[in-house]
Amino acid sequence: MALKLYERVGKQDDHRPSPFSWRIKFALAHKGLKPDENVPVLFTDKDIIAFSGQGFVPVLVDGDQVVSDSWTIARYLEDAYPDRPSLFGGPQGRALAGFVNRWADGVLNAAVFPLVIKDLHANIDPRDQDYFQQTREKRLGRTIEQFDAERPSFEANLAKVLMPLRQHLEDQAFVSGAAPAYGDYIVFSAFQWARCSSPTPLLAPDDSLHPWLNAMSGLYDGLACSLLRFETGQPG
Amino acid sequence: MALKLYERVGKQDDHRPSPFSWRIKFALAHKGLKPDENVPVLFTDKDIIAFSGQGFVPVLVDGDQVVSDSWTIARYLEDAYPDRPSLFGGPQGRALAGFVNRWADGVLNAAVFPLVIKDLHANIDPRDQDYFQQTREKRLGRTIEQFDAERPSFEANLAKVLMPLRQHLEDQAFVSGAAPAYGDYIVFSAFQWARCSSPTPLLAPDDSLHPWLNAMSGLYDGLACSLLRFETGQPG
Repeated sequence: MALKLYERVGKQDDHRPSPFSWRIKFALAHKGLKPDENVPVLFTDKDIIAFSGQGFVPVLVDGDQVVSDSWTIARYLEDAYPDRPSLFGGPQGRALAGFVNRWADGVLNAAVFPLVIKDLHANIDPRDQDYFQQTREKRLGRTIEQFDAERPSFEANLAKVLMPLRQHLEDQAFVSGAAPAYGDYIVFSAFQWARCSSPTPLLAPDDSLHPWLNAMSGLYDGLACSLLRFETGQPG
Repeated sequence: MALKLYERVGKQDDHRPSPFSWRIKFALAHKGLKPDENVPVLFTDKDIIAFSGQGFVPVLVDGDQVVSDSWTIARYLEDAYPDRPSLFGGPQGRALAGFVNRWADGVLNAAVFPLVIKDLHANIDPRDQDYFQQTREKRLGRTIEQFDAERPSFEANLAKVLMPLRQHLEDQAFVSGAAPAYGDYIVFSAFQWARCSSPTPLLAPDDSLHPWLNAMSGLYDGLACSLLRFETGQPG
């Protein structure tokens, strides 16, 4: 059965700046599933994914199943491939990963976004730039330039937002415990998104998150680095 | 084997204003364990718990085991009573509950505290009031009166902090999935703490969290209500 992942693409074919697509790329690797095809989709390529009944990536096509929304896709993969390594480790792990998903979407990604928006805008396909600028500035109530001018306050906010994650990773090697699982992919996708979007490091070189980021970057034969756009000059 | 829980007590013996003690009271009930003795401990009763080698409640004594720190106690109970209902549902659930624990300690409780500190101070034992005021004002860099004057900004902050929790509880009945478990006890303890500390409702009567709060309040024969200090006039 053919497995096909529609995922966000940026300025060049090797540039994949979408946290939600990365979550699923890792979830597929965790399950030992390799898409027969990865279809790059621009922000404005709504027609390419219209068959899914909505307008956002990632979209997974698995035989005759069409699944969109990263959290829905992750649960689909867990249920459709129960004999492969578990993404959640059971119902409680699934539910609590759902909380991490909500936290990442609404708090972590929201804290990262203002720090990468200017570079992200500059590094997406020129055909997407007007769409991106209009939708993001409308959603955020500010211009991209205004965000950049307030960078110090956003850096302080990110440091505050990362506090529970930092403390959590003092207790164990991965967000999900002794081994990485979907909770890790959710959180890591925010950093991967930043790394794909901007050459400016999000964290200082001695940041306590680097051992975990490095471990995540090394997973699945360096999956995270295989489509990395920038040499950031930092570990992780 | 005797089971004894040392927990925070307030102005009267039926007043138990400690989120960390409540987590363990629920964890014990979840495991079907009933302490032979609940020992009320004032903030300044450091001598009563000195045998534990530290100065904070809750402290659990289980036969010859002495365990302090709520997160350590929860994991102890899970490991010591593996055949009773699981608090975590496996290693991933345990790790992710640890993230919820860090979030609740550092973000949720920190958002609730400024909203209850004045009433909490008024409703603890008079012997504790100077100690409480000095330690809290030092920790927070403000006087209790200053906190109260800034109430609107703290209410706005709490609303923001609760966003991922609200969204998460749109997806399922409990934080931990279809049934309550330790993740729920962690988060609920913040609301229980507020309810034990202040007659002012933390949430509006039509708040979307009330169905979950009501369900939690009904658990274990109304454990949460058995030592409730205030009639808050709100559901939950």
